[in-house]
Amino acid sequence: MLRSLTPFALAAIVAAMPAAADEIGVLDPAIRAQATALMEAGLQDDVGLEFTESLTTEIGPRMAGSDAEWRARQWAMTKLKDLNFQQVYIEDFNIPYWERVTETASVTGNNPQDLAITALGGSKSTAKGGVEAEIVRFASLAELKSAPADSLKGKIAFIDERMVRSQDGSGYGVAVAKRGGCAKAAADLGAVACLIRSVGTDSHRMPHTGGMSREGAFGALPAGALAAPDADQLARLLERGPVKVKLNIQVKTSVSAASGNVIAEVEGSSRKDEIVLIGCHLDSWDLGTGAIDDAAGCGIVVAAANLIQQLPQKPKRTIRVVLYGSEEVGLFGGRAYAAAHADELDKHVLAAESDFGAGRIWRLASGVGEGALEYVAAMQGVVAPLGIIPADNNSKGGPDIMVLGASGVPVLEPGQDGTDYFDLHHTPDDTFDKIDPAAFRQNVAAYAALTYMAAQTDWDFRKAATPESEDQ
Amino acid sequence: MLRSLTPFALAAIVAAMPAAADEIGVLDPAIRAQATALMEAGLQDDVGLEFTESLTTEIGPRMAGSDAEWRARQWAMTKLKDLNFQQVYIEDFNIPYWERVTETASVTGNNPQDLAITALGGSKSTAKGGVEAEIVRFASLAELKSAPADSLKGKIAFIDERMVRSQDGSGYGVAVAKRGGCAKAAADLGAVACLIRSVGTDSHRMPHTGGMSREGAFGALPAGALAAPDADQLARLLERGPVKVKLNIQVKTSVSAASGNVIAEVEGSSRKDEIVLIGCHLDSWDLGTGAIDDAAGCGIVVAAANLIQQLPQKPKRTIRVVLYGSEEVGLFGGRAYAAAHADELDKHVLAAESDFGAGRIWRLASGVGEGALEYVAAMQGVVAPLGIIPADNNSKGGPDIMVLGASGVPVLEPGQDGTDYFDLHHTPDDTFDKIDPAAFRQNVAAYAALTYMAAQTDWDFRKAATPESEDQ
Repeated sequence: MLRSLTPFALAAIVAAMPAAADEIGVLDPAIRAQATALMEAGLQDDVGLEFTESLTTEIGPRMAGSDAEWRARQWAMTKLKDLNFQQVYIEDFNIPYWERVTETASVTGNNPQDLAITALGGSKSTAKGGVEAEIVRFASLAELKSAPADSLKGKIAFIDERMVRSQDGSGYGVAVAKRGGCAKAAADLGAVACLIRSVGTDSHRMPHTGGMSREGAFGALPAGALAAPDADQLARLLERGPVKVKLNIQVKTSVSAASGNVIAEVEGSSRKDEIVLIGCHLDSWDLGTGAIDDAAGCGIVVAAANLIQQLPQKPKRTIRVVLYGSEEVGLFGGRAYAAAHADELDKHVLAAESDFGAGRIWRLASGVGEGALEYVAAMQGVVAPLGIIPADNNSKGGPDIMVLGASGVPVLEPGQDGTDYFDLHHTPDDTFDKIDPAAFRQNVAAYAALTYMAAQTDWDFRKAATPESEDQ
Repeated sequence: MLRSLTPFALAAIVAAMPAAADEIGVLDPAIRAQATALMEAGLQDDVGLEFTESLTTEIGPRMAGSDAEWRARQWAMTKLKDLNFQQVYIEDFNIPYWERVTETASVTGNNPQDLAITALGGSKSTAKGGVEAEIVRFASLAELKSAPADSLKGKIAFIDERMVRSQDGSGYGVAVAKRGGCAKAAADLGAVACLIRSVGTDSHRMPHTGGMSREGAFGALPAGALAAPDADQLARLLERGPVKVKLNIQVKTSVSAASGNVIAEVEGSSRKDEIVLIGCHLDSWDLGTGAIDDAAGCGIVVAAANLIQQLPQKPKRTIRVVLYGSEEVGLFGGRAYAAAHADELDKHVLAAESDFGAGRIWRLASGVGEGALEYVAAMQGVVAPLGIIPADNNSKGGPDIMVLGASGVPVLEPGQDGTDYFDLHHTPDDTFDKIDPAAFRQNVAAYAALTYMAAQTDWDFRKAATPESEDQ
């Protein structure tokens, strides 16, 4: 339905809907009208898609700490200045660096054939020329962990667990445990390497990379992910008898590499020191061009802020757009930002991050004070014509703003439809053609309206429940 | 609908349909009943899927002339003997050999990034370490051919033509022209290499390989196919200005390598010397495991013949199953068979080949004498409950039997639904998980019934039109 929702159709829907927010009485009708106008503009926006196209085309893959990530920061500086944002600058930080060099796997013996794999972020190198060892299959990380001591001595562990597809991406948290922990658990039992079925929901010959847990697993063993059809193949071969695999993973690491966050602002007016932060991450994995993860998120928040800065009057509060660096390899940008801005975190009135692809937003969750729920309800009422339904108040925010949330900064989480997100996530297939322009523009519309409402009101999203509301 | 068509449902449909074939009066009711029973058995068949699973799992990719193709022949001999076929043997022949060793491409200059490519069959090697040159884009092979003489001197031609998706695969014939001819046309204008947008209908990061024309193009230049998203990317970069690509393709060739056709028979009874041939090809491209191209075809025809040989009485005519070798690289197996059996081609009463994936059969085309069209109509009436509609009499047969058709052997062409076939065709993604078991079994059912009718009747499919029917 949304694909054909024109601005005119939206206006008609808005006119026909009960004015929930106004009835609640917390939202100034002028702000409501302006937010609705921003939504209409968002549904026609081209700036966000062009930003995303340009980043994925001109920079392409931009691995944390790499030259390409450096080029992406320079590119972003130019783009954001060209869009007339104020206060465009880079905050530098350093990260430990990891990159893949080669990665191959093949079944040896009577059924020789290559398997499609990719090294996991933090994988160790095998010996030069590779390691050949017998495969031991486990249904889950828990099953691997419960194997007898030394039972994997000289062998390769293979965790063959499938991921559940769901709209909210909740299958990811479950599935990702094996990616984070396989290397450590397998090393503890004497294994020489570990392989996992890719954390993903597709059945293409494209393995999904992703980071290993930095607590213990990182660097513990050579570790790789098999594409789903290759995990199927290995499982079928194992049904026939013992299987040996020759695995060759070579990686390059260094203690320190340059990374950074790129920041741009729409300067506020009467409440200039109060900050509404909207973020995304600029780095990507190296296999694809990082279109849905997360150039799209950057295009969405930049376009939303850009629509607001084009209004005749600046909003009361400052809108800060943060394009985080080095998210994929350990949320370094998020932590660097929180550290650099420790003394003004109490001035951050609200934060949101777009980092779950480019699917349409279907619900609006929050992590705010109980007393501020009426503001979230008012905001939800305004974006309801975009097909966005209310959700709970248990959000911790996106990956890079989680550290802000933990420090008491209220968060909003416009939840994107992630049904297909893990078909592409962290694979070579994460490219610009996968973005649906209509769904993308619905995101711009929602972010523009939500950000504007947060910046133009004097709402305190930290507000505790009042005694009366607690009684109810 | 077909996915839920159980044998019981089929019986109900058959009972409810007007007995078209019987009304025509050309088909013995007992043969009709037996063909219907074979269809019911086909819809429950497991032999074909197991055959396909075993070939794709235990052998995997099996490039023409390779060790893997040799292993596939040994594997097939064992399988076919285990199924109790008579006359199981290999007919050897030799082919010129080509294989890929390495293949990489990357954009150089200000937007450095890798592109996903694969070498085309027959590609020449670049210089060791690769060749770097400017890209010149063309919308079609025709546009390339009409470029001025020497205008591509030292450059890389890029044909960026898209393929049309269609149920009958008719977009392939159009799109494949650029794959066959790019190298020769580009070489004639002084180019150092040619790249094409993959001949395919998907938008995944998986380039489609395939053979170049052996007339002139083969070996003319280094030649590769870009995955669709990479062709998009290159086109977007070219919109921004000149683009250089570094292309490194290394291949290995030899003058002669061993290949062969594997043949198995269900020996006929009263008309034993008359042959109904059903075929497929055993070789595959090297990128995937050749599941839909063409292990599925082999599974389908083997399972169909197997159902017939399990009947209490042998059919009148001999059913010959031919698993052709070296189809992909130039139809060598088809030509070798025709040469080896030149003296008995007139005894081939009908031939059919399954080599268009594992989608359901939606129509039945033929290439028979005008006087034999009533037999095809009778056959079509029998398989109609499988959802198969009549088609025309212009079929030339499948790739390996085309040479038989050209020699006057009548052909039948059960047309599979190819809407999605070119999403997977010649890519790493051609794997067993892509086969829909219900659609596969519908193929087995149709082949079993059609093959049985051809083998159990005394129909002459070469029969010319009678004067009366010509009058009409």
